[in-house]
Amino acid sequence: MAETIPRSVQRLMEALGRLPGIGPKTASRLTYHLLRSSQAEAEELGQAVLELHRETGECPVCFNIMQAGVPTCGLCSDPARNDRVLCVVEDALDVLAIERTGAFTGRYHVLQGAISPVEGVGPEDLRIEELAIRLSSGGVEEVVVATNPTLEGEATAMYLKRRLQGIPVRVTRLARGLPSGGDLEYADAHTLTRALEGRAEL
Amino acid sequence: MAETIPRSVQRLMEALGRLPGIGPKTASRLTYHLLRSSQAEAEELGQAVLELHRETGECPVCFNIMQAGVPTCGLCSDPARNDRVLCVVEDALDVLAIERTGAFTGRYHVLQGAISPVEGVGPEDLRIEELAIRLSSGGVEEVVVATNPTLEGEATAMYLKRRLQGIPVRVTRLARGLPSGGDLEYADAHTLTRALEGRAEL
Repeated sequence: MAETIPRSVQRLMEALGRLPGIGPKTASRLTYHLLRSSQAEAEELGQAVLELHRETGECPVCFNIMQAGVPTCGLCSDPARNDRVLCVVEDALDVLAIERTGAFTGRYHVLQGAISPVEGVGPEDLRIEELAIRLSSGGVEEVVVATNPTLEGEATAMYLKRRLQGIPVRVTRLARGLPSGGDLEYADAHTLTRALEGRAEL
Repeated sequence: MAETIPRSVQRLMEALGRLPGIGPKTASRLTYHLLRSSQAEAEELGQAVLELHRETGECPVCFNIMQAGVPTCGLCSDPARNDRVLCVVEDALDVLAIERTGAFTGRYHVLQGAISPVEGVGPEDLRIEELAIRLSSGGVEEVVVATNPTLEGEATAMYLKRRLQGIPVRVTRLARGLPSGGDLEYADAHTLTRALEGRAEL
């Protein structure tokens, strides 16, 4: 069957199929879509992928992704943001999700992962020491731990709480409870337990 | 929010978001996956997309996609295939689907679409005249119409039947009925009607 598909088509199907959530069928559908679309459109995508690593870097302050060639990321260099609150997230995508809410105006710190004994990720693999150093220099009053509500995220939050004990800073955690728009009937027992535990005055 | 994301990241997210079935969330997830993966891996994908159009062409015989620089596609040039049966499909992806079955050993003809008055696609926009010319030169005994089981596919099949009437060739259509592995209970009335109409001796 290999010879029925041109090599370059096969190659793209394989490269797309290696992306998360993209199976062989989606990979071939995308490839054939690109074949049908204009050469300019396909090349715009190709160029964007090609330049991704060359044009980006890691912010030396918060470890978020940033444009290559600038000293720090846009969030760290923005003078309008609140220096007293620091939100700690697992990865750069989480920064986007929180920024989308518009409900947080402080700074960020990207751990670049979560503690996971199963996957062999320990605290030393994360940007936790960099966080401790950042906090030791003062100015931050509250650290909002926004790791995922998963086993790994919880373990990381617990580790952070202990690790930051000597530093005079308030450590908080995102609230747990029923998601908006969700149906109580379909909430899992763990979520519902957390929602009950965290109940507040109306 | 624009300045919180590096330009090159934003650009890739937009380019990926233009692909079918990829919404903004998937686009950002894929982009951040590529950021985390090695530069070599990302560049392999970028290069593959970039070279896709440059390295492919359209087979002048069956209008399937082919490697650039060869006279015809691998399926047309394969001497082992049966010249007497021709399978007519809407697009190149359908060739892949049929090849995957291993149940067809004839040649193909890719219409590059289906008749759709809603989308303004008429018979003249498809490779139907090229098919008629191909059949007129003789040698083909059966044309298997394998257009999709949709309104557009059916309309195209009906048009083909009329258009090929003067040519001494048997025109057949893929069977309609219950899909394998499906549950009769969940089959829609139209599928079930076709399954009843097409019933055969056990």
